[in-house]
Amino acid sequence: MPDSPFSVLIPLAEQAKANGIHVHHLNIGQPDIPTPQPALDSLKNLQMPVIGYGHALGDLPYREKLCGYYEKFGVTGLKPKEVVITQGASEALLFAFQACLNPGDNILIPEPFYANYNGFAGMGDIHVKPVTGFIQDGFALPEIQAFEQAIDAHTRALLINNPSNPTGTVYPEPVLRELAALVKKYDLFLIVDEVYREFCFGEQPFFSALRLEGLEDHVVVIDSISKRYSACGARTGAIVSKNPDLLHSIGQYCQQRISPGVFGQVVGEALLEMSDDYLDSVKAMYEGRRNVVYERLQQMPGVVSYLPGGAFYCFVELPVDDAFEFCSFLLESFSWKNQTLMLAHGQAFYASPGLGKKQARIAYVLDEANLHAAMDCLEQALAVYPGRTA
Amino acid sequence: MPDSPFSVLIPLAEQAKANGIHVHHLNIGQPDIPTPQPALDSLKNLQMPVIGYGHALGDLPYREKLCGYYEKFGVTGLKPKEVVITQGASEALLFAFQACLNPGDNILIPEPFYANYNGFAGMGDIHVKPVTGFIQDGFALPEIQAFEQAIDAHTRALLINNPSNPTGTVYPEPVLRELAALVKKYDLFLIVDEVYREFCFGEQPFFSALRLEGLEDHVVVIDSISKRYSACGARTGAIVSKNPDLLHSIGQYCQQRISPGVFGQVVGEALLEMSDDYLDSVKAMYEGRRNVVYERLQQMPGVVSYLPGGAFYCFVELPVDDAFEFCSFLLESFSWKNQTLMLAHGQAFYASPGLGKKQARIAYVLDEANLHAAMDCLEQALAVYPGRTA
Repeated sequence: MPDSPFSVLIPLAEQAKANGIHVHHLNIGQPDIPTPQPALDSLKNLQMPVIGYGHALGDLPYREKLCGYYEKFGVTGLKPKEVVITQGASEALLFAFQACLNPGDNILIPEPFYANYNGFAGMGDIHVKPVTGFIQDGFALPEIQAFEQAIDAHTRALLINNPSNPTGTVYPEPVLRELAALVKKYDLFLIVDEVYREFCFGEQPFFSALRLEGLEDHVVVIDSISKRYSACGARTGAIVSKNPDLLHSIGQYCQQRISPGVFGQVVGEALLEMSDDYLDSVKAMYEGRRNVVYERLQQMPGVVSYLPGGAFYCFVELPVDDAFEFCSFLLESFSWKNQTLMLAHGQAFYASPGLGKKQARIAYVLDEANLHAAMDCLEQALAVYPGRTA
Repeated sequence: MPDSPFSVLIPLAEQAKANGIHVHHLNIGQPDIPTPQPALDSLKNLQMPVIGYGHALGDLPYREKLCGYYEKFGVTGLKPKEVVITQGASEALLFAFQACLNPGDNILIPEPFYANYNGFAGMGDIHVKPVTGFIQDGFALPEIQAFEQAIDAHTRALLINNPSNPTGTVYPEPVLRELAALVKKYDLFLIVDEVYREFCFGEQPFFSALRLEGLEDHVVVIDSISKRYSACGARTGAIVSKNPDLLHSIGQYCQQRISPGVFGQVVGEALLEMSDDYLDSVKAMYEGRRNVVYERLQQMPGVVSYLPGGAFYCFVELPVDDAFEFCSFLLESFSWKNQTLMLAHGQAFYASPGLGKKQARIAYVLDEANLHAAMDCLEQALAVYPGRTA
């Protein structure tokens, strides 16, 4: 298990703060938006004399309500037994990898990708084979031929994150259908991490992999309440599949840890009883923030970016010698009006050595005023960074 | 990943209930005792506008308080950085196995043992090598020579559960010291699951592996609030180690799932602020129950048992042809005053094929009146079971 690629930067941020500098955290997908009050109220009103184990697969009423929730995205006819509650998307990924792949198998993932996929694969001695995407086309899915060439005798699954952390790319229906044909041809699992599905900004409407007809045995969807309800600390996720054998196998992993947390499920169920107004307003907020970041980046000389269609991330190529060095510089040697910003350097999101060296991920998890202040800092820093190339 | 050994019995219990029979559940370690009110109050009073990720290793104030808690057991000088919060003992076991062993390595465990250890090992392609214990000596630790003989080039760790689920055996200080010498000689990790440490009934005082001098680099302790505070659904556990390299590795697994659940930690911290009266009274309650079960079993012809020193389990050998068949019979074909009981059949706790065939685990997680009723059922059932051997 490798060290987190950000473990070097975190102490630098702590030191900057100790020096009295305000650090704008655009480095982590931790939303700043308040968790809806019904979540906290549900715990206040909890009547449960014994906080005992729940059902291994999750409490049935919550799973029933989740089936109704997925209907809003055109996923019809889902049964509660096809929805398994997990401790965050993290556990969902761990169990999905373990259930779909054996030690020594490999999984194809377009890069750049969420760095922690590597770790969950490694826990099962599973290897990640990256298929490289490119910033010039907004990290659209790589050509299907590139995936096909990467498939070998040990390939068992293909994973995408739709919309994508770290690129904000939304994979539209035709792309999903292309992938469907490929995974069917080679009898692979198609694991789709859809935790950002709420945040698609119209250019590309969201299309769930659960809507792919004839792919019922192949599709595994990863879900979580963390991002859509600003409830990362609740650790409440889910796996959705219509494959009975796979569900059986996932159930075995669930039984082993006996049950997911009770409190996170109480919160998750309460949140599903809210009207859509909350999620609509959050989506509008993220769209406004995205526009701020996009427009500011467009005005910075030498910065390469694109309009990300979803999630709350964008990926940029910076006019610098080395983005990791630049990220360190921002925290160690720079401030503007006593402020700086923290970014996640791009290399951390690639499995192929050497790629992403000039790139970085920006998580727009601050309000527009703070985003403007952070973009001011970025603009100023790019002008004075010793390793600038623009 | 094998099916849970109890997956066949559970539907039989459901069917018995559907037929109007009251089933006394002595098959699962789910305490019936109410969770202390301060746990629920802590959630009522929670002030947290954004339920965000916590620290990957757990919130510092909670870890500080846990260091104080371990002092009650003679574990002095523990630092918060040596205590890592996990999502139940389940995640603690998973991370400890992953951090201590590589794929293909093996771990020695005295059998019978908690069946889920198998699954956590399997997730990392780690093999369990059982060392057999015997009911005739109350499942005392097998001879140290038996462990030594089982060690091979791929052995990296030895695990005990003290006090033991499923046997209730307490391993006293001299036994811990014997194990210490062995793991030191062969440079193994000594993983000790101490989740039942509160429940030692005096014959054998509890001795924590964290007190073994000179074993700081070897000892890994697994902990959880589930059993001592009847809070299984909170999913709040911990790993304790003084080995800096191992802590670093465990920290990498923690970072990967970003943080343990917030709510479970809030509850865990509140519980540590309670006086010792609660735990003292719970211990007394379990001791009384243990005595009921022990005395009743002693009066049943052909039943072999012993006085278990701790936890809330005992293991018995029954005068039957096959304990699994007997467990099925109890649910399918028997009732006494419209009641029956559910037991966990013994084979599920052995890794060696064929062992434990006449044995069963009894979890005394009911009050004394219900335990007497369950023992009445057991006594009656043993008298009429077609495969009885007494």
